[in-house]
Amino acid sequence: MTQWIAGQWVEGLGAAIESITPYSGEVVWQSHCATKPQVEEAVLAARSAFLSWKKQSFAEREAIILRFADLVKANSEQLAEVIAKETGKPLWETRTEAAAVAGKIALSIRAYHQRTGESQREVAGNQVVLRHRPLGVLAVFGPYNFPAHLPNGHIVPALLAGNTVVFKPSEQTPWTGEIVMKLWQRAGLPNGVINLVQGAKETGIALAESKGIDGLLFTGSANTGQLLHRQFAGQPEKMLALEMGGNNPMVISEHYGELDATVYTIIQSAFISAGQRCTCARRLYVPFGDKGDQLLVRLVEATYQIKVDQPFAEPAPFMGPQISQVAAQAIITAQKALQSLGGESLIEAKVAKAAFVTPGIIDVTAIEQLPDEEYFGPLLQVVRYQGLEQAVALANETRFGLSAGLVSTEDREWDYFVEHIRAGIVNRNRQLTGASGDAPFGGPGASGNLRPSAFYAADYCAYPMASMEGAQTLLPETLTPGITM
Amino acid sequence: MTQWIAGQWVEGLGAAIESITPYSGEVVWQSHCATKPQVEEAVLAARSAFLSWKKQSFAEREAIILRFADLVKANSEQLAEVIAKETGKPLWETRTEAAAVAGKIALSIRAYHQRTGESQREVAGNQVVLRHRPLGVLAVFGPYNFPAHLPNGHIVPALLAGNTVVFKPSEQTPWTGEIVMKLWQRAGLPNGVINLVQGAKETGIALAESKGIDGLLFTGSANTGQLLHRQFAGQPEKMLALEMGGNNPMVISEHYGELDATVYTIIQSAFISAGQRCTCARRLYVPFGDKGDQLLVRLVEATYQIKVDQPFAEPAPFMGPQISQVAAQAIITAQKALQSLGGESLIEAKVAKAAFVTPGIIDVTAIEQLPDEEYFGPLLQVVRYQGLEQAVALANETRFGLSAGLVSTEDREWDYFVEHIRAGIVNRNRQLTGASGDAPFGGPGASGNLRPSAFYAADYCAYPMASMEGAQTLLPETLTPGITM
Repeated sequence: MTQWIAGQWVEGLGAAIESITPYSGEVVWQSHCATKPQVEEAVLAARSAFLSWKKQSFAEREAIILRFADLVKANSEQLAEVIAKETGKPLWETRTEAAAVAGKIALSIRAYHQRTGESQREVAGNQVVLRHRPLGVLAVFGPYNFPAHLPNGHIVPALLAGNTVVFKPSEQTPWTGEIVMKLWQRAGLPNGVINLVQGAKETGIALAESKGIDGLLFTGSANTGQLLHRQFAGQPEKMLALEMGGNNPMVISEHYGELDATVYTIIQSAFISAGQRCTCARRLYVPFGDKGDQLLVRLVEATYQIKVDQPFAEPAPFMGPQISQVAAQAIITAQKALQSLGGESLIEAKVAKAAFVTPGIIDVTAIEQLPDEEYFGPLLQVVRYQGLEQAVALANETRFGLSAGLVSTEDREWDYFVEHIRAGIVNRNRQLTGASGDAPFGGPGASGNLRPSAFYAADYCAYPMASMEGAQTLLPETLTPGITM
Repeated sequence: MTQWIAGQWVEGLGAAIESITPYSGEVVWQSHCATKPQVEEAVLAARSAFLSWKKQSFAEREAIILRFADLVKANSEQLAEVIAKETGKPLWETRTEAAAVAGKIALSIRAYHQRTGESQREVAGNQVVLRHRPLGVLAVFGPYNFPAHLPNGHIVPALLAGNTVVFKPSEQTPWTGEIVMKLWQRAGLPNGVINLVQGAKETGIALAESKGIDGLLFTGSANTGQLLHRQFAGQPEKMLALEMGGNNPMVISEHYGELDATVYTIIQSAFISAGQRCTCARRLYVPFGDKGDQLLVRLVEATYQIKVDQPFAEPAPFMGPQISQVAAQAIITAQKALQSLGGESLIEAKVAKAAFVTPGIIDVTAIEQLPDEEYFGPLLQVVRYQGLEQAVALANETRFGLSAGLVSTEDREWDYFVEHIRAGIVNRNRQLTGASGDAPFGGPGASGNLRPSAFYAADYCAYPMASMEGAQTLLPETLTPGITM
């Protein structure tokens, strides 16, 4: 019973689907996908639930969502364990993800009021009123790297605004999706307000194609995002919010300050979550010369020391495995491709058992046409440069624009960087994967369609309704020219 | 010399194009369209101007834009006359359009700061900074009904945010486009920050297809908007903001209050600008029974009295002509189609000389499948109903969702209406075409892609850039598990 449709847990009637721990190859969850008719049932259930959910007061919706936050807190250890089993992320890290799921609620409530909400004032005998209205039924597609936190970042603002939801988790993390849905159920969400369908590409296509949805909120790869964008062509009336990947540059200035702190910041940026965060540093720009050489030597030393292990190991690892053996192989393939183009590995990424890949660093300075691809794993490309202007020009040579960073103690360098870099998350002397929960999140270019999530998610979950109101119609003393009454 | 490219006035090298007064058939402006290579030149000029325009401080950009506002005020009579000649709208009305162009500036500056702008605060030793950045080169496509005000509603927020612009006016109103550009030139806008290309479909396609644009801001028909949406498929990185039409319902309750004031409000809603506003009432829902009958009798009487004439006539008319003879004929064709489906004309719209059409009212209650089309002219469809619930259900039977209105003195009816109606502009006892300049404007469904213009235009002219900043990198006392330094 793994599909949650109209408040009932039902069996999927499609192909078999299972969730496998990427660190031990153990099957931890198995079921069947939702078929196209089941997806339609879920959409219909969301449609049926829409009017009454929308009609509830904001305070009523908010109360249920706050109960969900309490349940997440009360069950955070279980949630963290399930995420760790499905994704292989270290337990200390999945605990922060569980905390982020609960923490999202207060932030989303604040964003609702600040970005949307209601206001009223009187102007020349008219009440000028601004309200916001939900869009209707929203499909939410979740990714595997933060299988609870990232879909939650769409679902919570969608529900607060009065939309209903059909949620399809990544086929790599169906169990996490199910666990979270059960917390929503316990929070007392009315039947059909969220519906869960499990499955891979076919289920996803059925959901995206359904005529009954009013929008689709997506976090995932640029390739899938572009397919969805094509699929929605000619339907501007459907909200399509895309948060996709990045090929994120991190620029180390000559004036990088303290060596170890800088190396630590680079490691956090490149290898956290085994390189499976969309904001991870992929390209590291290091100045030619002694200071750059010293930095690389220390970076390589420290990278060798990174502990890679299964999520529950003691002492705890910094990195777990990739999400799957296929993903692990993709990193090795990328490394080989870069080597064949002239890249020189400073540390070679290596496949270990199951889906483990050890961190790799490759100097790609010699490659004339560096591929502008997102390698979604622990493979950091190093490019040596001469002068900050060149570094920023190279950093901007990407169709993506998600995150970027500068390490520099010089304010004038930061001023130049922040003025010239093209990205949505731009950090100074901090890891690239650090983002404030009450700021918008997202970036230009192939990283998304300019509807950043996090704090601005409220924007795309509601449309504004502007009113001029008066208690009765008025016949003015002077009529508009050309009208006689 | 009618194309303004890189700060130079140059000849169009394409097909001949002329502007004809729709009330007298006089040619008031003639030139040649921009060719595809000229469009590319304009895009390149905007690209070249982008970096330095973006680098100017907000205060510097604001100062030029405020000078433009002053110039519009100083030249408002000339602007109003040109708009009247090209569109045929009465002079009293085009004067309000000229005033709205100047009035837009202060509102757009406020929106910039409120919706985008910058903020900074300190959290646990990090500076959390939110900035907004321009998208780059934006194409602006203008409509003919408000040929100065509506493109201005895209151009001003785009420039304030630091974007550069290539503007293509409607081929029906090229002269107004040129006049406004000359005011921008006199305001001291740097070369290339706005570029003007004149032309019809071919020029438009060349501009929309240009690889050099980062987005397109469109106001016009739903058909063209959908074509653009298809053209942009698979390019989520390009901002496409669509403001399109409506098939707007106006519901008259049994409790409509004062008769003449209500009739006056209906006439304003249906026939202002000769029915060529996207917010005009197209469908009028009138209760069955005596009160509804009385209303219709008075509405028909008053509609017969509407003065239709050329813009400069004395005494002034309420309505001018349609934009063209083709547009005039389209209204007559629509009326015939509705009649053949079973509609009964209460007043028949008639073609007069040039592009004039007199106002028409047609009772379409007998039509079972009322076509959901926007008839962009002075043709009001009446539908009789029984009970407010039915009226609202019928009112919502549209793929559009731009404006809607209720005339009722009963608060509980308004509460029901505002809760159930699906539209972006929802007015009570006020004309449907009334909208506050400091509110967002736009609607769901086929009326646009949910990026409302007016106050929220600031949103789609900039992307957010969120930063975590520190003066130097930090090595924490306790390292993340699995890292050894």
